[in-house]
Amino acid sequence: MAEQTFFAKPGSVAELEDGLGLTPKFDADGLITAVATDAASGDVLMVAHMNAEALSKTIATGEAWYFSRSRQALWKKGETSGHTQRVVEMRIDCDQDAVWIKVEQVAGACHTGRRSCFYRAVPLGSSGDKIRAAKLEFRDARIFDPNAAAAKKA
Amino acid sequence: MAEQTFFAKPGSVAELEDGLGLTPKFDADGLITAVATDAASGDVLMVAHMNAEALSKTIATGEAWYFSRSRQALWKKGETSGHTQRVVEMRIDCDQDAVWIKVEQVAGACHTGRRSCFYRAVPLGSSGDKIRAAKLEFRDARIFDPNAAAAKKA
Repeated sequence: MAEQTFFAKPGSVAELEDGLGLTPKFDADGLITAVATDAASGDVLMVAHMNAEALSKTIATGEAWYFSRSRQALWKKGETSGHTQRVVEMRIDCDQDAVWIKVEQVAGACHTGRRSCFYRAVPLGSSGDKIRAAKLEFRDARIFDPNAAAAKKA
Repeated sequence: MAEQTFFAKPGSVAELEDGLGLTPKFDADGLITAVATDAASGDVLMVAHMNAEALSKTIATGEAWYFSRSRQALWKKGETSGHTQRVVEMRIDCDQDAVWIKVEQVAGACHTGRRSCFYRAVPLGSSGDKIRAAKLEFRDARIFDPNAAAAKKA
């Protein structure tokens, strides 16, 4: 398993929760969840995944690396778009299957052109069939042209 | 599939990203990722999962419900501990496979007794074998006795 190259295996629950050892608990696909928040505003920018290599590269370089499940490939955030994320702080959760990185985001994190991927609110209070009829509310405008970013990629 | 009771099926990429319809993209296990942040401080409190029922109950009640992968059970956050989460706002991401909820957290979100599950920082800058030797840094102290909370559960 690739992750054994980089990290020691998870131990007991007590070691995972109260220990000083970084022993990420990768899932069956070799991934942990990564949440990136804006170091300045605190907003959640994106939720993605890291494999052992992405996590170790992020730790080593202080720039965010992820693993794309759809493309099954390691990627450095902003490698083609220029919209990189400098990691200000990394935290790991109690059972070591998720990391939270506070980042300085260049331009926007979302490929649709917004600062955050979470640009729509879900109205609360509806139930039953009314949930199906709920309309999302746009909260964040585009801050860059996603087509220009795509063109840059090509 | 249970989610079809509550939500319409995801459509095209354009509909998912730019539409007004709430059409969550549940994974093979019927789950989406849920990130809860503290509505006051912006800190990430926990990362968990919701199935269609948990998501619909959260929307309907304004209180956070999750689905436990380890217990394979729906659970209301704080049902036994009293450490509930009132949802101030819910956001959904571009491809509708993750939600971000801003919550008012009673006491602490973490079963270990901390406010947040992300109570340890991962030092940055090490690489190679040094990553294995990295020591996590505790940043948040316990704010409640997890054993008392467990006793309350019984």
